[in-house]
Amino acid sequence: MTTIGVLGAGQLGRMLALAGYEMGLRFVFYDETPDAPAGHVAPLTVGRWDDHAALAAFADACDLVTYEFENVPVATAERLAATHPVAPAPRALEVAQDRLNEKTLFRSLGIGTAPFAAVGTTAELRRAVDAIGLPAVLKTRRMGYDGKGQRVLRRPEDLDVPLGPLGGHPLILEGFVPFDRELSILAVRSRTGETAYWPLAENVHRDGILRVSVAPAPGVGDALTAAAADLAGKVLTALDYVGVLAIELFEHRGDLLANEMAPRVHNSGHLTIEGSTTSQFENHLRAILGWPLGSTAPVGFAAMVNLIGETPDPRAVLEIEGAHLHLYGKSPRPGRKLGHVNLVERSPEALTAAIARLASVVAEPTLAR
Amino acid sequence: MTTIGVLGAGQLGRMLALAGYEMGLRFVFYDETPDAPAGHVAPLTVGRWDDHAALAAFADACDLVTYEFENVPVATAERLAATHPVAPAPRALEVAQDRLNEKTLFRSLGIGTAPFAAVGTTAELRRAVDAIGLPAVLKTRRMGYDGKGQRVLRRPEDLDVPLGPLGGHPLILEGFVPFDRELSILAVRSRTGETAYWPLAENVHRDGILRVSVAPAPGVGDALTAAAADLAGKVLTALDYVGVLAIELFEHRGDLLANEMAPRVHNSGHLTIEGSTTSQFENHLRAILGWPLGSTAPVGFAAMVNLIGETPDPRAVLEIEGAHLHLYGKSPRPGRKLGHVNLVERSPEALTAAIARLASVVAEPTLAR
Repeated sequence: MTTIGVLGAGQLGRMLALAGYEMGLRFVFYDETPDAPAGHVAPLTVGRWDDHAALAAFADACDLVTYEFENVPVATAERLAATHPVAPAPRALEVAQDRLNEKTLFRSLGIGTAPFAAVGTTAELRRAVDAIGLPAVLKTRRMGYDGKGQRVLRRPEDLDVPLGPLGGHPLILEGFVPFDRELSILAVRSRTGETAYWPLAENVHRDGILRVSVAPAPGVGDALTAAAADLAGKVLTALDYVGVLAIELFEHRGDLLANEMAPRVHNSGHLTIEGSTTSQFENHLRAILGWPLGSTAPVGFAAMVNLIGETPDPRAVLEIEGAHLHLYGKSPRPGRKLGHVNLVERSPEALTAAIARLASVVAEPTLAR
Repeated sequence: MTTIGVLGAGQLGRMLALAGYEMGLRFVFYDETPDAPAGHVAPLTVGRWDDHAALAAFADACDLVTYEFENVPVATAERLAATHPVAPAPRALEVAQDRLNEKTLFRSLGIGTAPFAAVGTTAELRRAVDAIGLPAVLKTRRMGYDGKGQRVLRRPEDLDVPLGPLGGHPLILEGFVPFDRELSILAVRSRTGETAYWPLAENVHRDGILRVSVAPAPGVGDALTAAAADLAGKVLTALDYVGVLAIELFEHRGDLLANEMAPRVHNSGHLTIEGSTTSQFENHLRAILGWPLGSTAPVGFAAMVNLIGETPDPRAVLEIEGAHLHLYGKSPRPGRKLGHVNLVERSPEALTAAIARLASVVAEPTLAR
């Protein structure tokens, strides 16, 4: 019986375990937080990322290590890689943890990005603004997620405002892309080199947090699909990547610009649970085990709506025909991802109608558009 | 957070937990066996069915009790029902544990069965054979499953053979039905009284063990579908039943005869995991919680193939496009159900082709028919 060790025990890890249990796999988790959601469904070792004794105990209990959290320190992953197969390789973490590394990799592979420049000092910030122009977004290079660690600069006088929480961190300035919409491509590459791509998802964020994903993204033609798979394939190859990789994209006048990547299963892929022949969670496991990948074909027109900060009455959600309720067992807290609802329908029109029904029971303003 | 307590921790319980975890539920299990499959995914209390202290500890940890094993002693279920909601009610266990009770209930509801008679003595056996004729099947009234505790009587001299393992048990003689095929109907009734029915499944047994199910069963018309739902609905109502109920049926010249019922999720319903909008596992939980039931509509043409005694190389199964591998984490042993493979296709022809591909990697002779 193969036991998978997962670094991070949030909802992504929990859903990995639920997919893997179906295939007879076992799981152990490692996290800094005792009440992490995956700990409700599998043994959880609690420790800091530099607690070598706790990490050794975790490693002893598993055959293979992966992560569900991209801010696992690279040193931790490397330490485990000395004794265990670790997938994706720590190098992928290293790239994904730093927006400058990430964008530099994209650029080196010929993948379009917003203009960007590293910013370490006030003088560098001014030079970067001169080169890139305004509006632009100033971001911490590391540890930003769900819109944290970012500031939009619109006018020259915005440069005079103190940096606040951004101060003292290595920063990156990115040109503001007046994009038409946000898309994401989910890709997977097996230990054997086999690759597969799910259909592009269209994503709607609010306050920097993903709210709604729809896949296949409406109005995406073969050319855009091929372009997305092509750019994701370049990243998979460049990193000798094993597992699921998500790349967030901006669509701008028919072109794709890569915004950021996540070396793990991704929120915009939750709709693959019921919306695809094989979910991102199952294929991530198949990939790291070197098993054949499952079909990524959609089984219908799918949407995912995040439940953030509060959960609706389960009865109200489940009364909607075809609604699949996913809850992570977390306590409510403003801005916290507590669960999601997947909808899968046979036509785009039926999906629109199902989303409208869901909007009456889920307090998610972006559903009303 | 609602915690469901499940009596029995086999693969059925394991799959209940995996469905319930998706909805944020928690689980605790109770079983006589320490290494039971559900114990790999949830806390397991190990004890005998009459260990009141262990049962009390289990009960303290849950809000609601159900079972995945129909031979839980009725006294155990009744004891728990004094302090906790128990669904289905112990009365359903009482009926389902005794073939005579079961067939008497069917008959009282106007549901067709094979002719049957209770047999306590050799004299009663001879009278029963005189009334019912040969061939006939002599079965233990209680504790029979997967073909155990049965003997076919073909000729008068078969009555002179010592009863062997059947001796000393209350028995039932059932007329042998020269049926065309075996079907099953899965029904679910919520605490609120809402009911739903999955499409009829066609089942192939060998050596008394279910090998293959296909649903929707080929060639079933509206009349047969309505008849099956009608008879299942009568049983649900008669027992004021809450949860999933399976009834095994014989189809004989266009008529349905009820063979036996299981007051729980059922092996022939495993294909609902990927084959239906809502699986039997999810709907069982929704029913016992009083939540709205999910759609039981098929999402395609589905088949389930049990993996018995040994498991094939996962790679070989997963190479088959659309094959969903389910393993229960059990050690191999002859005759033991270790897992199953679900196939879901868009047409009956595609399903036949997928089954043929699976037959090349799964050693299941009934696939070759």
